[in-house]
Formats: sequence, structure tokens, C-alpha cells
Amino acid sequence: MRSRPVEDVTIGDITSAADVGHGSFYLHFRSKNEVLIPVVRAAAERWDEALQKALADCRDPAEVVGLSTRHMGRQITGDPLWRWTLRHSGMPIDTLRNAVGRFAARDIGRGLLSGRFQVPDLAAASSFLFGGFVAGLLTSLDAENPEQAIDQMAELLLRTMGLPLDDAARIAHQPLPPLTLNGDRT
Amino acid sequence: MRSRPVEDVTIGDITSAADVGHGSFYLHFRSKNEVLIPVVRAAAERWDEALQKALADCRDPAEVVGLSTRHMGRQITGDPLWRWTLRHSGMPIDTLRNAVGRFAARDIGRGLLSGRFQVPDLAAASSFLFGGFVAGLLTSLDAENPEQAIDQMAELLLRTMGLPLDDAARIAHQPLPPLTLNGDRT
Repeated sequence: MRSRPVEDVTIGDITSAADVGHGSFYLHFRSKNEVLIPVVRAAAERWDEALQKALADCRDPAEVVGLSTRHMGRQITGDPLWRWTLRHSGMPIDTLRNAVGRFAARDIGRGLLSGRFQVPDLAAASSFLFGGFVAGLLTSLDAENPEQAIDQMAELLLRTMGLPLDDAARIAHQPLPPLTLNGDRT
Repeated sequence: MRSRPVEDVTIGDITSAADVGHGSFYLHFRSKNEVLIPVVRAAAERWDEALQKALADCRDPAEVVGLSTRHMGRQITGDPLWRWTLRHSGMPIDTLRNAVGRFAARDIGRGLLSGRFQVPDLAAASSFLFGGFVAGLLTSLDAENPEQAIDQMAELLLRTMGLPLDDAARIAHQPLPPLTLNGDRT
């Protein structure tokens, strides 16, 4: 699926690559979108693992959230499957939320417990942040400088969490630690 | 269309109410969603007119944006057509953006010019805000206290614009001026 545009991949391609009948596909998946869910989720797990390693020495929970957001944004928008997922609202946005949500909840939770983040209501904040995150990624796809657009989104996200403006700006624009991804993409 | 759930309204209902043929419908509109666009846009205009009157004496651009957001949120989530629009991603989110975007741009522009709002990049901020706004409205539809959920979203939106936390909280929770809507709903 990564070798050509997802739009061009038919269910027939998938079933013949997997050597199963067309009918069996629908026995397990309701649509082409649904077959992507585990793929998208596995990628998010691999990225999170690498991020955890890269940020292991980082003591500021706001920095962890800010730098993770910037890295995740680059990974997501750099991957053809995720790009397709983002552009097609036919794939429920909940899938995306599902795939990255628990990592976000873990990191944001640390910031709240330490008092570094302050939000009036967690449910309101998490939906607002997620909506802003997805909209920001979509905008970055067509931006002249996609990485800059992602960093600006991260800055706004940190403001939403109650961070002072100068801290949000600094974290959104400081150099990113390198990421070492395990495993093969194919 | 407002007299029963939009899901139950068929194109046949629309064409017979308007006394035109089924074929003429598709000559003008590609789908049932598309026929909603002018309706949704007209409602936004009517709400904005009422808001402009209600907030005519308000000197703080942040207050204008905050109170407008809270009122618009209540109107949007209180209207069956808009609720349906929100819940169905099949209707392009761009339609919503189109309908309320220019009012938002006008009010946010005033805040930026006066220095009350500070954003690193206007394109990044407007997509982040709009994503957060829509996600916040969707969450409010299922919230125990929908108005409170809308007000919390407005607070986060003001934070994103660079407002101090205490100002954002005050504006998000102060009493709303009453709105007088002209025209009939039917």
C-alpha cells in the first residue's frame, strides 16, 4: 500500500496480495479505510517508542508535549498512508484520536499533575487540542513550509494548556532531538 | 426541513415541497448536503447581525470574540440543521468555515490590530482555532452541560489568541448579553 497512492489501491489488490477471496475481505473489514486502522496504529506506537527514548532525559513535561507534537506532526504528514487518512474525512477522525490519544493523555497528564499545565476542564481541553492538532496538520500539508506550520501549531497547543507565551514560543522553535526509528517501513 | 430530522428528509420531499422535478434538483445541487449551504449561511448572517447589535458598546475586542463565540456556539448547537451538519462529516467542514469564517476574521482582526491578541502566524492560528471550535461544539452536543462545554471551549480559544489566563477565564464565564433575533425560524 505504501508503493502507490492509496486512492489507486483496490480491494482486489489487497485480497490478491493477501491471497484471500474478495468476500473474505468484507467478512473482516467494512471498507478499505478499516484495513488501515491497525497499520496507522502500529506506526503511532513505533513513533511513540522512539520519542520516549529521544526525550528520556527531558524533565519539563511541557517540553515533552511540545517536542513530541512537533515530531509526531512531521511523522504523520510525512507518511503517505497517514496523509491519505488526514485528507479523507471518510475515515473517522476517531481512528486518529484512538491511535495517538493515549500517548497524548499520558504526556499531558504528567504536565497537569506537576502543575505545569492548567486547564479548566480536561474533556473540553482534549477535544479542543485534538481538533486544533488535526486542523493544523491539514493546513501544513498545503503550507509553503510544512515544518514551520507544524511548529506554529505546537506553539498554539502549548498556549491552550496554559503555558506562558514565551515558554510556548521557545519550546515550539528550539532544535528537535534526533529520532531513531526501529524496524523497517515496508 | 426543520420540522423533522434531516436524515429522514428525502430529495423527493424537497422537490415536491418546491414543486420541481427530481432531475431539476440534481441540475442545481449535487447532494442533499449542498442544498443546506445557503440555509446554514443565512442563519450565520442573522446571528451575526444580532450579535453586532448586542455587543455594539463592547470596547474590548477579546470580549467581542469571546462572547460571540459563546453565543454562536449556543445558536449552532441549538439548531437542528446545524447539529446535523456538525455530526455528518460528509458535509464538508469548509462549508461551516465559509459561513462563520468572515465574521471570525473581522473580529479577530480587530483584536490583532489593537495588540490585544498576539499570534505567531495568522494562517496557523485560524486553522487551529477553527479545528478546536468545531471539535468543542461536537463535544458539547454529548456533554452533560452543553453550555458549560461551549464556554470552556471559548476560554481555550482566547488562550490560543495569547490572552492572559485570568482574562480568558473571566470572559468565558461572565454573563452573556441577551440576543434579539430578527425574522422567523420556520
